[in-house]
Amino acid sequence: MKKKVMIMVLFSLSAAMNSQDIKMTNSTIDNKVKALLTKMSNEEKVGQMTQITVTNFEVTGRKGVIDAAKLKEGIQKYHIGSILNVPNPGAPTVKRWREVIATISDEANKTRLKIPVLYGIDAIHGASYTQGATLFPQQIGLAATFNTELVKEGAQISAYETRASSLPWVFSPDLDFPRNPAWSRMWETFGEDVYLSSKMAVALVQGFEGDGVGSKYQVASCMKHYIGYGSTTTGKDRTPSIIPERILRQYDLTIYEAAIKAGAKSVMVSSGEINGTPVHASKYLITDVLKNELGFAGVVVTDWKDIIYLYTRHKVAESNRDAVKIAVMAGIDMSMVPEDFTFYTDLLDLVNKGEVPMSRIDDAVSRILKMKFELNLFENTVANPKDYPDFGSDKHIQKAYETAAESITLLKNKESVLPLNKNEKILVTGATANSMKYLNGGWSYTWQGENSDTYAADKFTILEAFQNKIGKENVLYTAGADLEIENDEEIEKAVALAKEASKIILCLGEKNYTETPGDISNIYMSDSQIKLALALAKLDKPIILILNEGRPRLISDFESKMNAVIQCYLPGNEGARALVDIVYGDVNPSGRLPYNYPRYPNSLEKYNRKYTESISEGEQNDDAKYEKSYLPQYEFGTGLSYTTFKYSNIKIDKKEISSSDEITVTVEVTNSGFKEGKESVLLYLSDNVASITPEFKSLKRFEKVILAPSETKTITFTLTPQDLKFVNNDLKWISEKGTYTIQIGDQKVDFLLQ
Amino acid sequence: MKKKVMIMVLFSLSAAMNSQDIKMTNSTIDNKVKALLTKMSNEEKVGQMTQITVTNFEVTGRKGVIDAAKLKEGIQKYHIGSILNVPNPGAPTVKRWREVIATISDEANKTRLKIPVLYGIDAIHGASYTQGATLFPQQIGLAATFNTELVKEGAQISAYETRASSLPWVFSPDLDFPRNPAWSRMWETFGEDVYLSSKMAVALVQGFEGDGVGSKYQVASCMKHYIGYGSTTTGKDRTPSIIPERILRQYDLTIYEAAIKAGAKSVMVSSGEINGTPVHASKYLITDVLKNELGFAGVVVTDWKDIIYLYTRHKVAESNRDAVKIAVMAGIDMSMVPEDFTFYTDLLDLVNKGEVPMSRIDDAVSRILKMKFELNLFENTVANPKDYPDFGSDKHIQKAYETAAESITLLKNKESVLPLNKNEKILVTGATANSMKYLNGGWSYTWQGENSDTYAADKFTILEAFQNKIGKENVLYTAGADLEIENDEEIEKAVALAKEASKIILCLGEKNYTETPGDISNIYMSDSQIKLALALAKLDKPIILILNEGRPRLISDFESKMNAVIQCYLPGNEGARALVDIVYGDVNPSGRLPYNYPRYPNSLEKYNRKYTESISEGEQNDDAKYEKSYLPQYEFGTGLSYTTFKYSNIKIDKKEISSSDEITVTVEVTNSGFKEGKESVLLYLSDNVASITPEFKSLKRFEKVILAPSETKTITFTLTPQDLKFVNNDLKWISEKGTYTIQIGDQKVDFLLQ
Repeated sequence: MKKKVMIMVLFSLSAAMNSQDIKMTNSTIDNKVKALLTKMSNEEKVGQMTQITVTNFEVTGRKGVIDAAKLKEGIQKYHIGSILNVPNPGAPTVKRWREVIATISDEANKTRLKIPVLYGIDAIHGASYTQGATLFPQQIGLAATFNTELVKEGAQISAYETRASSLPWVFSPDLDFPRNPAWSRMWETFGEDVYLSSKMAVALVQGFEGDGVGSKYQVASCMKHYIGYGSTTTGKDRTPSIIPERILRQYDLTIYEAAIKAGAKSVMVSSGEINGTPVHASKYLITDVLKNELGFAGVVVTDWKDIIYLYTRHKVAESNRDAVKIAVMAGIDMSMVPEDFTFYTDLLDLVNKGEVPMSRIDDAVSRILKMKFELNLFENTVANPKDYPDFGSDKHIQKAYETAAESITLLKNKESVLPLNKNEKILVTGATANSMKYLNGGWSYTWQGENSDTYAADKFTILEAFQNKIGKENVLYTAGADLEIENDEEIEKAVALAKEASKIILCLGEKNYTETPGDISNIYMSDSQIKLALALAKLDKPIILILNEGRPRLISDFESKMNAVIQCYLPGNEGARALVDIVYGDVNPSGRLPYNYPRYPNSLEKYNRKYTESISEGEQNDDAKYEKSYLPQYEFGTGLSYTTFKYSNIKIDKKEISSSDEITVTVEVTNSGFKEGKESVLLYLSDNVASITPEFKSLKRFEKVILAPSETKTITFTLTPQDLKFVNNDLKWISEKGTYTIQIGDQKVDFLLQ
Repeated sequence: MKKKVMIMVLFSLSAAMNSQDIKMTNSTIDNKVKALLTKMSNEEKVGQMTQITVTNFEVTGRKGVIDAAKLKEGIQKYHIGSILNVPNPGAPTVKRWREVIATISDEANKTRLKIPVLYGIDAIHGASYTQGATLFPQQIGLAATFNTELVKEGAQISAYETRASSLPWVFSPDLDFPRNPAWSRMWETFGEDVYLSSKMAVALVQGFEGDGVGSKYQVASCMKHYIGYGSTTTGKDRTPSIIPERILRQYDLTIYEAAIKAGAKSVMVSSGEINGTPVHASKYLITDVLKNELGFAGVVVTDWKDIIYLYTRHKVAESNRDAVKIAVMAGIDMSMVPEDFTFYTDLLDLVNKGEVPMSRIDDAVSRILKMKFELNLFENTVANPKDYPDFGSDKHIQKAYETAAESITLLKNKESVLPLNKNEKILVTGATANSMKYLNGGWSYTWQGENSDTYAADKFTILEAFQNKIGKENVLYTAGADLEIENDEEIEKAVALAKEASKIILCLGEKNYTETPGDISNIYMSDSQIKLALALAKLDKPIILILNEGRPRLISDFESKMNAVIQCYLPGNEGARALVDIVYGDVNPSGRLPYNYPRYPNSLEKYNRKYTESISEGEQNDDAKYEKSYLPQYEFGTGLSYTTFKYSNIKIDKKEISSSDEITVTVEVTNSGFKEGKESVLLYLSDNVASITPEFKSLKRFEKVILAPSETKTITFTLTPQDLKFVNNDLKWISEKGTYTIQIGDQKVDFLLQ
């Protein structure tokens, strides 16, 4: 600490970023790929398909130091095409990255064909494996902004800073469609709506890749994890999903289609299985659907060790060699092996014995080489720091701040307890109140993000942001609780301090985590934190609950006793400042919840449930007493403001349409309060009768507008024929005659499809 | 109260039951059906397909009194083919049933063709809608016996007593395959294993139907609820299921196949939807799969109001008429309308206008008439009490007692705290300790079973059974807790009384329920009961936890503090006696848990999980620290005894087999303790590698044996080629080459399929 609050300058990067693009036409690249391919030996081809973790090339016993001999072996002997991950102990500086990449590049230049090594990185919310990079909110927060332009600008900055680190390929965006909110990677997704996810996916891909990836300010994106990874039945990471193909196509696949159309250069395959078939072993899903049907022309890479796991975990292969054959024949182009050369040796043997045809290998290698040409890696793999003056700059940080400010979601504000008065003494307490780890979450400097407090020592924790805002003398603090271990002494301390304060800022949430270390068996907020909340609730002091969590941990045991609830998600390095500005009304909150926040652990209904899951509506008979208990803590789309918005005058241009017609809807939105505010206008559509049971409602359009007090804007949305369609049992997108209802705010209008 | 403990006489009913069968050959019946059909008008045909609730024919304002005019209208004007349900206020006597059925029969005899009305009844665990009938454990308890012969004998008694009530058609067995233990009808199923469910399904069908249903001691069974009803994603009743067809065929459909082969005469359709298609609207599932592929020749009846619900809840029909057309064209033969004649009028109109072809109507009516002929209803619909001397007899009650005794499952017995000494003073407490409602559950005398204490006033509650066993002077009692409402005073009372006792019998569980009234959002045991358990656990007294519940309510908050845990399920009218005999060691427990009892609400893994859900086994590397948390409270198959059993000397007759070979396995089981006991020997099979990810293990055979101390028996199982098969992505049952592992107790042996 402690930087000053950043200058509020909006800045468009797009002009600067495209200025020095070296553009090659597709046909030029295709010709180069073909020419190069003909020169390559089987060994060189199989090597291209091999991706190894950089830590494999470190000196034994000296973590972080590259071992020239090992690197030489990997590149010269095994001809590896790609390296990934971060050297020990995590998050190098730009300068250090430059050295590492240069070392690799130098070794590649010594090979016969001088094919550059493609370096891939989990840059998830900014260049999150580079020291000093700008860290944005995690994806779930991006979704909550409902602001695609802002998200795209953030991705441009992430691309800029990643490329500044000499890293050309990011394993982002995450297009997982989570069906179980207990899943440990819920926060890496865009939430539970397929339309919102698709729009956000396109924004990230466009931000990362620009008009192509030839520019030194763009990176190749990697959609992940194709497909169905986020739908594990039990919520545990890398466990089976059950998704009938009709449903897979209507939801999960739609998001990929959108991202592919936006140009996404690569895709990472799900570590899970769908209906008993591991996706890494599914020729149908990878080759038939993704490559052939959707026309995906980029690189298909596995996730960590996942070919090996076909043998050791999934038990669909009898040996590693068998696993390699299954995966490559399914359509895998590159194996994130990543800790040995077994993929290389087994695949080479399979190729030499004709068990994997050369056509398959050439397809894979062509895709990899094409991406390397597109990224201009043959020309340049090492970034020149002079080209990246804005790395970690105030203007980048300001964009991360704005993104956090638009993501943070006000879920409850009883009797307008917020915004607070800056003159009041407050108690800040809770296990997440004073650490950068919880604001950033996993994939921050290291895999699990456990060292954010070291790497982001100059950033504000929630406590520090409050102290900075209203002065240390006005902020009382004690941890109050550990994330897991019950501590009555700390609770007593918090209760005692609370008596001296006029309001309590209670910060609850989760540890930093991703993947299996984030598995939970109980979606309730931890007992130690619930205990603190209940103890403080016994006092007669208003409590502002700050949620800092990757997934909705249940708060129904004490929510009714909270005066205000703010969901921060994982807002990144600038999140605490944004939060505190919202608490004091310097920023008017405008985030909306991108998922249903459940109330009970065995009641995980989605907002776009079927009518049978919420049968009270429209039922006026005796059955009403047996209605379904659809009662989330907060519904998808919830998000309060310090002003009020009024919807009126909904209109459609046609009352009846044909199946090829578009329909245009207008609605007036008025700021009926006394403060400027942003409002995400959401359009929901309900198909009132359909041969596949229709959803209660589903999001079809959104637009975020800013309105001064008393200002009215007319919002126009155009629905296309596709918006009325669903996937039927023949796996076709169809629409059916009948009535539909459009809902925007409290405004409803019906139309008829003839 | 209080009957004496029944005489322990085993009695086989089969000889008596078949003695007076009036057998007709199939072709005779088919000819009769054809002849009758040609005489019928459209109105009479459509009427046959109509099923109305008996309460519709009661005098307005005088519940329970049949209104002759209304009945005449139903039978004469609407030609209804079937009546169901129980007259108000529930559970008539045999004599009253006889009067009701005679009244209906008399009216039917006045019609032109004198076609008898088929009466259907929810006789679920015995003739559960008849006063004085013998009530058995609910289905989940039957499964826990692992004793198919015993279950079959119980079904014979149920058939006998139901037919004694002049009721020829039972809506049983329940073949639902529950995937979510929160579901309110979990207890109506045979649990989570498909093999166990299939075997039990066959036992019930055979017990109900015998060699056919022509005998006056047999009833027609009704498999329900075809199909996928028990797999709702959220656990709420009648909400959507997601089941890919491959999985539906491998699990759910297998159970139906077994029951159809056993001769089941009818089937009730699921009220839910699968993958967006309500089963009542699925021609594929009803006509193509059930009728054509499986060759089911019986009657397909809807569940309550479910055709109407296609319109009002599922929203797949634009009107009731549309719903009727969709359902009948899907293959529905009879509509449980059941509260109006809209089905009749709409279907008649559809038939008259040619929108539903006569061939479909004739198929439906033929199936209904065939069942009526098979049941000899044309000869006789009213039972003669003289034919049923054993109704509610001691020997029937004894069989219910034995079934309860073999179902009750000892889950924990720390330091052999059980069996108790009869001289010790005990405290019996808990919300379920003193009511017949909780022992019987739903479908007992009334739909929700709320009046069991009145109807079964002569039966023992748990408290009464303890008092009867060891004398009132040795039994302290207070309720201790309500099922839902917290009551600190009651807890204090229980704690105070506990100090006077040497052991505590803590009875926890659930209210009586079925269907939507049993929906829950939180699978934990209710807070009021947890609070009582924790308060008692603070004393230094051994606690015997008695679980009396339809589904596994989580006890992980206090289980470690319980000295013994006994699962009663819903053991029926004789359950408390059986329980107490087990507590005092007069019966050696032999039940086994037919499902995984979860520990946490968001960790609902099944015992036959995939390897990826339990990856610690076989993983000896760094990944082990990220192993999946497969840790149920108690695993499927758990069940302790007061003696011990030792397994040894497993042998197979072949180490290598072809895909057409059987394989015979033998194992020796020894009673290595000091008490006679019954042991269910379970054979699990693991397919070690398969193209569809194999299950960790799956049950393939079981046999229950009785062993004296030191006695050894050799158990022989023969696995067939089908046992090695699974359904692949082409929806074919296949086996694949490779190794398999057989596991019985702690004995394992491998073989190779070549």
